[in-house]
Amino acid sequence: MVHPKNIVVKISGKWINPDKPEIIGGYARVLKKLYEEGYRIAVVVGGGRVAREYIAAGRKLGLSEAVLDLMGIAATRLNAMLFTVILDDLAYQGVPRSLDEFMEAWSTSKIVICGGFQPGQSTNAVSALIAEAIGAKLLVNATTVQGLYDKDPNKYPDAKLIRETNVEETYRILIEEQHYAAGGYELMDPLSLMIIKRGKITVKIVYGGDPENVYRAVKGENPGTTIRPE
Amino acid sequence: MVHPKNIVVKISGKWINPDKPEIIGGYARVLKKLYEEGYRIAVVVGGGRVAREYIAAGRKLGLSEAVLDLMGIAATRLNAMLFTVILDDLAYQGVPRSLDEFMEAWSTSKIVICGGFQPGQSTNAVSALIAEAIGAKLLVNATTVQGLYDKDPNKYPDAKLIRETNVEETYRILIEEQHYAAGGYELMDPLSLMIIKRGKITVKIVYGGDPENVYRAVKGENPGTTIRPE
Amino acid sequence: MVHPKNIVVKISGKWINPDKPEIIGGYARVLKKLYEEGYRIAVVVGGGRVAREYIAAGRKLGLSEAVLDLMGIAATRLNAMLFTVILDDLAYQGVPRSLDEFMEAWSTSKIVICGGFQPGQSTNAVSALIAEAIGAKLLVNATTVQGLYDKDPNKYPDAKLIRETNVEETYRILIEEQHYAAGGYELMDPLSLMIIKRGKITVKIVYGGDPENVYRAVKGENPGTTIRPE
Amino acid sequence: MVHPKNIVVKISGKWINPDKPEIIGGYARVLKKLYEEGYRIAVVVGGGRVAREYIAAGRKLGLSEAVLDLMGIAATRLNAMLFTVILDDLAYQGVPRSLDEFMEAWSTSKIVICGGFQPGQSTNAVSALIAEAIGAKLLVNATTVQGLYDKDPNKYPDAKLIRETNVEETYRILIEEQHYAAGGYELMDPLSLMIIKRGKITVKIVYGGDPENVYRAVKGENPGTTIRPE
Amino acid sequence: MVHPKNIVVKISGKWINPDKPEIIGGYARVLKKLYEEGYRIAVVVGGGRVAREYIAAGRKLGLSEAVLDLMGIAATRLNAMLFTVILDDLAYQGVPRSLDEFMEAWSTSKIVICGGFQPGQSTNAVSALIAEAIGAKLLVNATTVQGLYDKDPNKYPDAKLIRETNVEETYRILIEEQHYAAGGYELMDPLSLMIIKRGKITVKIVYGGDPENVYRAVKGENPGTTIRPE
Amino acid sequence: MVHPKNIVVKISGKWINPDKPEIIGGYARVLKKLYEEGYRIAVVVGGGRVAREYIAAGRKLGLSEAVLDLMGIAATRLNAMLFTVILDDLAYQGVPRSLDEFMEAWSTSKIVICGGFQPGQSTNAVSALIAEAIGAKLLVNATTVQGLYDKDPNKYPDAKLIRETNVEETYRILIEEQHYAAGGYELMDPLSLMIIKRGKITVKIVYGGDPENVYRAVKGENPGTTIRPE
Repeated sequence: MVHPKNIVVKISGKWINPDKPEIIGGYARVLKKLYEEGYRIAVVVGGGRVAREYIAAGRKLGLSEAVLDLMGIAATRLNAMLFTVILDDLAYQGVPRSLDEFMEAWSTSKIVICGGFQPGQSTNAVSALIAEAIGAKLLVNATTVQGLYDKDPNKYPDAKLIRETNVEETYRILIEEQHYAAGGYELMDPLSLMIIKRGKITVKIVYGGDPENVYRAVKGENPGTTIRPE
Repeated sequence: MVHPKNIVVKISGKWINPDKPEIIGGYARVLKKLYEEGYRIAVVVGGGRVAREYIAAGRKLGLSEAVLDLMGIAATRLNAMLFTVILDDLAYQGVPRSLDEFMEAWSTSKIVICGGFQPGQSTNAVSALIAEAIGAKLLVNATTVQGLYDKDPNKYPDAKLIRETNVEETYRILIEEQHYAAGGYELMDPLSLMIIKRGKITVKIVYGGDPENVYRAVKGENPGTTIRPE
Repeated sequence: MVHPKNIVVKISGKWINPDKPEIIGGYARVLKKLYEEGYRIAVVVGGGRVAREYIAAGRKLGLSEAVLDLMGIAATRLNAMLFTVILDDLAYQGVPRSLDEFMEAWSTSKIVICGGFQPGQSTNAVSALIAEAIGAKLLVNATTVQGLYDKDPNKYPDAKLIRETNVEETYRILIEEQHYAAGGYELMDPLSLMIIKRGKITVKIVYGGDPENVYRAVKGENPGTTIRPE
Repeated sequence: MVHPKNIVVKISGKWINPDKPEIIGGYARVLKKLYEEGYRIAVVVGGGRVAREYIAAGRKLGLSEAVLDLMGIAATRLNAMLFTVILDDLAYQGVPRSLDEFMEAWSTSKIVICGGFQPGQSTNAVSALIAEAIGAKLLVNATTVQGLYDKDPNKYPDAKLIRETNVEETYRILIEEQHYAAGGYELMDPLSLMIIKRGKITVKIVYGGDPENVYRAVKGENPGTTIRPE
Repeated sequence: MVHPKNIVVKISGKWINPDKPEIIGGYARVLKKLYEEGYRIAVVVGGGRVAREYIAAGRKLGLSEAVLDLMGIAATRLNAMLFTVILDDLAYQGVPRSLDEFMEAWSTSKIVICGGFQPGQSTNAVSALIAEAIGAKLLVNATTVQGLYDKDPNKYPDAKLIRETNVEETYRILIEEQHYAAGGYELMDPLSLMIIKRGKITVKIVYGGDPENVYRAVKGENPGTTIRPE
Repeated sequence: MVHPKNIVVKISGKWINPDKPEIIGGYARVLKKLYEEGYRIAVVVGGGRVAREYIAAGRKLGLSEAVLDLMGIAATRLNAMLFTVILDDLAYQGVPRSLDEFMEAWSTSKIVICGGFQPGQSTNAVSALIAEAIGAKLLVNATTVQGLYDKDPNKYPDAKLIRETNVEETYRILIEEQHYAAGGYELMDPLSLMIIKRGKITVKIVYGGDPENVYRAVKGENPGTTIRPE
């Protein structure tokens, strides 16, 4: 059940939120172009400032992490909704809340945009699960960084961007060594890596501040880091 | 179908949002006290900063007002969710999205908290409709001001707080004279006034920055302005 | 997000109800013709006799207006359902109950038919909101009268049909002067007028007893009254 | 899983509809009395004039029976809604559309009122299924007649009311002999009889024009015909 | 509302279940072929071993038949889900739980697959109702036997396969004579026969162990028994 | 938001499935006893034979793991449904499909039973998330083994049951050393361990073949292994 023209685009909440209308507009243009070239596209939007605000408030009020996660997910859906309505007729005009609902929406053949699904599961993991479910072999992850580094670039000025690697190596860098905790996990948590490996999905990590990077990645370029599934 | 112990509390989005955890905590304590005294309480939470941010972003991107309203409503539901989880077992753990869904949730006998329902309808109108539907005779409106003034207090230093009035007079001040447009409408739009009149609902406008004002209003005091339905 | 071939047709409950199978058939033929010419059509069906019967019964039993409105809306949905099943494969086979649900159904590219959405909001307002949400620039209102008159034609034999006007003037005639209360409001309530103005939607009021009037109005004729948004 | 205080009341659409507000009021009083005596009550409301009107219109327009049935069911739900809102806090404020949804609503311990569930299944069958599902041993069927007759009372002036009988005999009279087709089927169709037999449910057929008959039947009297399940 | 290219395929739970991956694969190929030839296809999957296991367990635990039926239906939906995901993009990726939900899913123009809908209603009856609702004139019933026999082939070695018959005769053989109870009912219960008669639907009973029989039946052959509606 | 009388019981799919009616009956008695002693109980039921059968069939047919997981979850819900209907009035009569739906059902104050929620998340993780969300401090995990061993008891005859330990140590044994892969993961995967640690939840692993072990664990005994959160 491989569908070579099915692709998943994960976009960091840093780029799809009310502070970035121009970048949202840029992503809309890129997706439109890809859609017209015959790609079928699923989009997962991460949290961002608003999610963090609700989580911080809830934490002060003594809420548990599971409940904070519910609120963070609700905030990602607000970003997803914003992007959905901008895409207008190209997108299914609803925000699926689970993989079941996603699959129903996917049946309309439109671009489908979602945020998080369920506490305990990152939006990166959601994008990997969707890729697997729709037989996509490419997941473009539009992040806040240029790609994967061999060590934490914030700490080590000599950190080098890795242009090509595989899942095993990524796991070792991001998780086992854990030399840059949260930052690393934002790229790929263990569940995401496990899914892309078993689903044989190529991940391209690109800098999301320039929406064209997503277009380039889909068309075969490698604007950041490419992670091979094997 | 009058239920004297059923009350509706409308709280401005200025007070229930991630910037105000202490005030949310204060409202939680007030509602708990009222709940334990045997009141059945419906809460409607308004928009606020987050709603305005999404609306502003959408407007820049050329979205229509109906669609912006959908996003603003989604944002009010995020505030409603935050308040719902804080109230824990006292509240129905879901945010109804229509009057039908509200009535189903109300069947659990818990406090039910919602945001907006539908584009073209303010959260003030929602609170009035709910009051009418559950036979409440009191709607406490916890706003950003001390109550209703005879003219726009921002413009006229001699504006006087009105302590008691009726719907007709409120309509005349807020809508016909329209001397303070948005600010006035935030208190009560024409639909809200029409519903409280036909539903014979007394409205108490209080300053929401002090949650105790809601308690005082329910217990018979008049901490701001009382609007009689006749 | 203007879509010149998107149109909204509001049809009075007087024409879409179990007493009028021939007229329903006529509307089905007109919509089929427009659909085949490439128009994308949303339909809003008003209440009618059945809605009035349930509302009258509920009122005798002491129900509040908000609850009566819930029942009236449920009755409009029965009419919408009747029209939906008649349109067969041309129409989405479900009746959306909110603007959110409407947008999801609209994603199927079929004709979507709904009744009312929410208490406190007329089916005229619903049709204006939908027009705004889908970027339609034309709303055809198939009513029980020939168009807008300068005064109440039931009272004044010399009342004149207005062929062209704008929103401001319509507001003045229907609402401020209020010389024909209910009849006027059935054409356009204040919320509807506010939405068509902000959404820059042209409204054509036509006599709904002849479904062909809707076709004529869409194709550029003015079979009744045309209300310009500016 | 027998619950001796769980009962099901099936009420003909002739009695719960907008033409009969006084009778609806009477049923509300009877159910309130039973509820306060500790009975847990499920109610199923049949179709009636409105259902027949939509079905007749749809038939003229060439709709299939399955689709007509969908509309008839939607009309029974309108009657169920009317009765639900009248019962106010005693009833779950929603109308379940399937046995699954009924069971969820039943979890609130309130009176639950529904109309039909699914094309091809009468509201009599729905009431029998619900009785079985909730372990009720009594189903009171408030009909348009005094009870079960040995032959069609409309045709034979000497038809005699049967005061006590069993399922086998009822089957023979109503279905095998079929001497009064529709009238008989309105009392009990084959599926309903099969379910009450296997569920060991006693049915009391009473004249529904007097709501007190339901109270009497629950309290052990036999105001019409009692059908024993064995 | 006759749609000559709409067809319904009922498949026994014996063939669509986790024990029969090859046969499921065969059905997927047959449906794909028909879909590409322009047929619009609804599929109803029956229960099977898993359904029987849950029902048997529940019966030991004292559950009522209505509740057992709910579980059996849930099990048919599991089979429907398995077949749905195998069909991939050809099928609507959800399993409708009622005729309403089916009609909504049918609006996507994809193959729609469901299991049972409601206790008290067999999956045969569901397939007949769907055929009627979508204007299909052919229902292919892929069963565990070669077709309809004049007497129970398990008991009588001289039982003869009937190649052509009509509904009346089928009713007489299967239901009135009841010479092979459960086995007969699995082919067609009284409700199913009633619906195919009123809906003027031709039924072709074929041996489901060979999926190609379904293709042959659709293309005009008669691989088992053909039941004419008149 | 700690609720000392809220508890979560995770039961392996080995014990709640159609092959084990007596054990299901035993669990029903234990939960009834705890419920009557004032505990509020959430139950999560794992997969089992039926889940494995559907997954195996789907794998043969080339389905991706994400889709297989969807089917496995659907199968856990079938087990949850079986247990739900057995618990009758003690349990909410529905099976929540997400943490949001769980919280809504939890508002009814009944026992709530669910299976899995979302692909990529084990039922162990679901039980930990629910414990965190409802402020439970005890999670009883009724498994297929006696408790946690220091090494794989199937391989090493000298493996010793650990009676008390903490999360760190459990992590080291089950995950880092990975000396008994699948078996270990069935007890606790990394996500589950992370949640019980952050949620300060005590886990008691007990042998689920004897339902009384759950009662003992809740009442303060340690019938297997106790894992302290710190």
